[in-house]
Order: sequence, then structure tokens, then C-alpha cells
Amino acid sequence: MRPSEQNLQPLLLTPGPTPVPLPVREALASPLIHHRTDEYRSIFRTVSGSLQEVFRTGNPIFTLASSGTGAMETGIINFLSPGDKILVLACGKFSERFLEIAKAYGIECDCLRIPYGEAADPGAVEKQLTLASYRAVYTALCETSTGVLNDVRSIGRLVARTDAIFVVDAISGLLADPLETDDWNVDVAIGASQKALMLPPGAAFLAVSPKAWAAAERGRLPRYYFDLRRYRKDFENFDTPFTPAISIICALAKSLELILKEGVEAQWGRCASLAGMTRQVLDGWGLKMFPKRPSNAMTAVCLPEGVDGNLLLKILKKEYGVFMAGGQGNGLKGRILRIGHMGAVREKDLLRGFDGLSKVLAQLGQPVPGGFPEVLEVTG
Amino acid sequence: MRPSEQNLQPLLLTPGPTPVPLPVREALASPLIHHRTDEYRSIFRTVSGSLQEVFRTGNPIFTLASSGTGAMETGIINFLSPGDKILVLACGKFSERFLEIAKAYGIECDCLRIPYGEAADPGAVEKQLTLASYRAVYTALCETSTGVLNDVRSIGRLVARTDAIFVVDAISGLLADPLETDDWNVDVAIGASQKALMLPPGAAFLAVSPKAWAAAERGRLPRYYFDLRRYRKDFENFDTPFTPAISIICALAKSLELILKEGVEAQWGRCASLAGMTRQVLDGWGLKMFPKRPSNAMTAVCLPEGVDGNLLLKILKKEYGVFMAGGQGNGLKGRILRIGHMGAVREKDLLRGFDGLSKVLAQLGQPVPGGFPEVLEVTG
Repeated sequence: MRPSEQNLQPLLLTPGPTPVPLPVREALASPLIHHRTDEYRSIFRTVSGSLQEVFRTGNPIFTLASSGTGAMETGIINFLSPGDKILVLACGKFSERFLEIAKAYGIECDCLRIPYGEAADPGAVEKQLTLASYRAVYTALCETSTGVLNDVRSIGRLVARTDAIFVVDAISGLLADPLETDDWNVDVAIGASQKALMLPPGAAFLAVSPKAWAAAERGRLPRYYFDLRRYRKDFENFDTPFTPAISIICALAKSLELILKEGVEAQWGRCASLAGMTRQVLDGWGLKMFPKRPSNAMTAVCLPEGVDGNLLLKILKKEYGVFMAGGQGNGLKGRILRIGHMGAVREKDLLRGFDGLSKVLAQLGQPVPGGFPEVLEVTG
Repeated sequence: MRPSEQNLQPLLLTPGPTPVPLPVREALASPLIHHRTDEYRSIFRTVSGSLQEVFRTGNPIFTLASSGTGAMETGIINFLSPGDKILVLACGKFSERFLEIAKAYGIECDCLRIPYGEAADPGAVEKQLTLASYRAVYTALCETSTGVLNDVRSIGRLVARTDAIFVVDAISGLLADPLETDDWNVDVAIGASQKALMLPPGAAFLAVSPKAWAAAERGRLPRYYFDLRRYRKDFENFDTPFTPAISIICALAKSLELILKEGVEAQWGRCASLAGMTRQVLDGWGLKMFPKRPSNAMTAVCLPEGVDGNLLLKILKKEYGVFMAGGQGNGLKGRILRIGHMGAVREKDLLRGFDGLSKVLAQLGQPVPGGFPEVLEVTG
């Protein structure tokens, strides 16, 4: 099939931002309401409750007007003091960001460096936790730069035995990979709007446990806009200390309605099934998975030797209207391909993506072995 | 005239957020694009150039995914070091926020406390500047909590003679009150999306002068998400270090197109004319202006003795669909009324607001002297 007019409608298959469904875009375009009103507070209250279902937590969720990195910084500066020691389980560009932020604030960091494409080994974490006393342990659920899924459940069990709090960047993993914030002993779980929540970027979320609040009482790092104490105080009235990202929160009410109608487990199931389908196709093409323990939010795959990943992405975008992502950091740029299949992405979107991808690979002299599988012929 | 169905369409006459015009809302609802693309960079480049016209500056404008307070914090933590001394010209809740932020970071603050409703006196500032050596001077163009307009031009001239940088919160004043960032020696001018830029909240802007950059080189306060050095580096490629508020930036391209088509001076002129009309009406009703030196972004007026301002706002909203704002801080709550007339607000909107307001005042036993002026009869 040749690219048609319809197919050139841009299709986001990146691991965030993700496509925003029409009803959510319509909500974004509604006339703006004022945030210091009962109407807004009622929406914010509903949204906050629904987010608790998504995070699987009974703890309050705090909402920031910022992108995910702002929430990661919030997860550091509220719970620590100068000279405190933390452990970072760094397996890619985003979990490494915790290190960068902590260092900017004079925090002493031990780092368990995990080779890109691998997940943190709970055994190694267990050993490391006996070597020093940490105030907090940081890692990611899905490491977006490599597509790896960490075993948050096992690591949470280990951290829970210590005085450290466990802070997890669940920005790209949320709603795609199972996460049981409370049951898995995650003290601070971080999310953002532009992934499986199907919204534009601009709002970020933190679920905060009582153990984390106890750490916050001791915290002496300077903070203002990201000071969770202010958010906790105003949250009693379903208010925020600073002007919230009103349009995104109102649209979030709509996307959460869609999400909870389907159900959280059903979302996990759908992402797992799309991930399985993606891997079956790419495997059939002889492409090697990059992560050893892959997330369901996205698939990261090694490109065949000799294929220029940047050129591939450029052609895919220009000729087929399909946006996938390349590698980030540590020499991965141009070498791996990352395909998002969370949020509003459906099978037909992936089929369109594979169709374009197979053709670009052929164009670049790497025809897909066995051609494009018949079952995946795009018929629509 | 009785409130009609049409009139109950909510009307935002608050000093932010302000109404978002339909073409801008349509842009907000466009399919999301990815931010690491030439398409987005081209939009961001155009937007950044247009913002320079709005700020009247040749200096680059940095864009944050945050609300205005995040940019105010950015305006402190990038340019100072622990123990540095600053001068804050505090004339209301928002200029006082600079004090709160600075104190959270261990900055030594001298404060020129100006009675609410008054503007900073350049003579007093001149004297204060001889008493100590400051790293920076902070104030607001329009102090949103009182509706006062500071004489930024005169103060800028005084600060320019010293080593201090001059940081101005122009969040509500931008595009409503004249501001010549470069000519008036403003080193850091701060704006946000939800005022005269006619957008939802979620993006904030800083115009940064070379003098401010020199201060930033010395700055030793901890920062990451708000670290302008990161933004400056990425701005070379019209990129941002962290995920931007994509939908707001794309809609900003549309609102800036509308704004620059009309022209910056024309916007100032329209706000001045709407402010004049508002004051004529309220004056005719015998209501006293609250600020001595009023901004054109908004009108703050004293309520008649015995009128419960909170009740008034409630009825106005419920029965007429009109949102105005009450007082903030320092015992002003319930005592003053603030009416926004910046951005997309037009004469007909204000007429609808006055119509509702006059009726609610009558309901509360304070009929408008001489009734509702005939010329303002709402006919549409």
C-alpha cells in the first residue's frame, strides 16, 4: 500500500507525548474556567480521586503545573537535607536525571549503574542497602530512554525494610505497566500528563506516603514553587497554592473518565497485548529487542547494522506521517528505535506504523526478511 | 434586562485567567505534535521572536512549563547566591511573593513596604539604593492584588546606575500597561500565559538581559528545572531542556498572531480605553478607586460599606454568569472588587459585567446612584 492522504495525518508512536483523543481535545478547547471557584475545585477533587485509582494508592496525589522533570525535582528537594545520602538505581537517561538533580542540591549520591538495556537487579540493590544508610532510593518504573522495566515490587520490598523512602519515576510506565503504589511500598510515585494519561504535557503528579511526609518534615533544602507542604495545606480545600494548568486538569477529567470506564487492569492488559504484537512483528523481521526486561509502555529495538536511525525516522515522518523515537544518551542515538504503544494508541495505529517502518527499512537497503506479514496488511 | 440564556455563558472578567478566544481554543485542540521535531522548533522560534516584540526587547525570552510563580522563582534563584542582599519593593501579595521566595533560599532581603493601593515612590527607592549595595531589585509592573501600576521606567533608571539587576513581575501588566523592557532597563521581565496573552495558565516567560546573565554566572543557588543556563544552551536550537507545554505554545503562536496583527501599542491603547470606561462607570456610581496609580490591566474598586464582597461575587457568578475577583491579602478580601479588562475582553463584555454588577448591588441594598447609565444598556 502506498501512503495515502489519510495516512499522512501525523501519528504519534513516540513514548510520549502520545496522541490526545478527540473528546479530550474538545475538553481542552472548552471555555476557560477560573481556578478559584467551586466548579474548578469540584473537577480537581474528582481528578485527584481518579488519579488515586490510577496510581493504586490511598495517599493524596499532588498536582504541579510543570512537566515531569519538575515533579522529579519535587521528589528530591522535599525529602532531603544538604549532606543526606541517597541511592540512585540508574539504568538510562531519565533515572540518571535523579542523580543530576540531587547533585545540583548538594546531596551525596551512591549510584548503582546498570548497563543500558538492563534492569536493576534486586539482589544487587539488597546488597547495596547493607553497605550504607540511605535517606532515599530513586529509580524509574519504565526507563523511557531504554524501554526497560524495573522490578519495582521487589525493590520496594527491600527498601521498605530500611529507613529510606522509595521514589519512583512512573512517568512513562503509569497505566502501561502494572504499578501498585501502596502494595509495592512506593513512597513517592511520579507521573505526568503526556503519556498514558493521553494529554498534552504541562501537569505532573506525585503520590506521597506517610513515610515520605515524615522525611519531608526533616527536609531542609530550599524550595518554593515545588514545596509540597504548600500543596498539602491547600489540598484540604481541593485548591493549589499557585495557578494550576487549568485546561489540562479539565481535560484530564475527561481522559480519566475514559480510562476508568475501561479500567486500570484493562489498560495494563491492552498495553501488554500491543507490546506483544509489536515484539512479534519486529522479531519476525529479525530485529533484536534492546531491553532485557521490557516495559509495556514502549518497545525499544536495535536497528540493523548500517541503518542510519536518524535518517530512518526522518523518512518515516516525512513520507508516512509516522513519528517514532530514536535513542537517547550513551551512544544510543541512531542505533535504537523506540515505539510507544500506551495511552490512546490502538492496533490499527501500530499496523500503520509497521507498514511505514517496513517500507523505510526496504528503502534503506534492509528489506524486512519475509516481507511485511500478511496478517498485518493495512486494510482501512 | 433580565439575565438571558446567552448571558449565562460564563464571562471571565477576572485579572487572570482571562477569556481564551475561539481561534486560540481551536489551536489548543489541534492534534498534539512532538516537541523534538523541526515543526515544533519552527513554531517555538516564531513564538520566541513574537514574544520579543511583546516584551519590547532584543534579549532572548526563555519559556518555562510552569505558572507565573515558577518564573518568579526562576528570577531569583538564577541570579543570586546565599547571603546576597536584595531590595524588594512590596506593594501587594504578588510583589511580596518575591520576598517569600528569596527568604526560602536564604537571601537577605530589604523591603520597601508600600501601603496597599499605593505604588513604589521612585524617590524612596533612590534613597534606599544609597543605603546598601544590592544584588537585585524586585517589583511588579501591575501588582495584581491591588491593581496598582508601578513606575517601572523611573525605577529602572535608578537601578541601572547601580550594580543591581532589576527584575519585574510583568505577569498581569504585560500588553495591558506599556512596558519597554530594554529602554526601561528591566533586566529580567517576567510574563505568563493566562493574562493578556489570552491562553490557559501553564507557560511562563523571562526576558533576560546581558547584565542579568553576568549575575547568573556568579549565582550559586541550587536549581535544576528552573536553571536558565540549561534553557540558554538549548535555545540555540530553539529547543528546551525539558518537555515544554506543547499545546499552550502552539496556541500561543495563534494568540501572538492575533496580538501582533493588532499591534502592541494598539493593545495598550485598547486596555487604556477599557480602563477609562470602567472607571467612568464606577465613578458615576460613586465607587472609590482602590489604587492611587492604577494599571490598565484591571480596575480595583472599593465596595460600599456594608456590602459583603464575597456574597456579591457569588450572586454575580450564579445569577449573571459573570466572574470578577475580590481582594487578596492584607484584609482586602470582601472589601474590594477587581475587574480585569485585558486580553480578549471587549466593551460589550464589560457592559454585561456592569449590568450584572449594578443589579447585584441593588439586590444587596446598595442601588447604583442614578441607576444604570442609559448609554450602557446592554442591547445585544
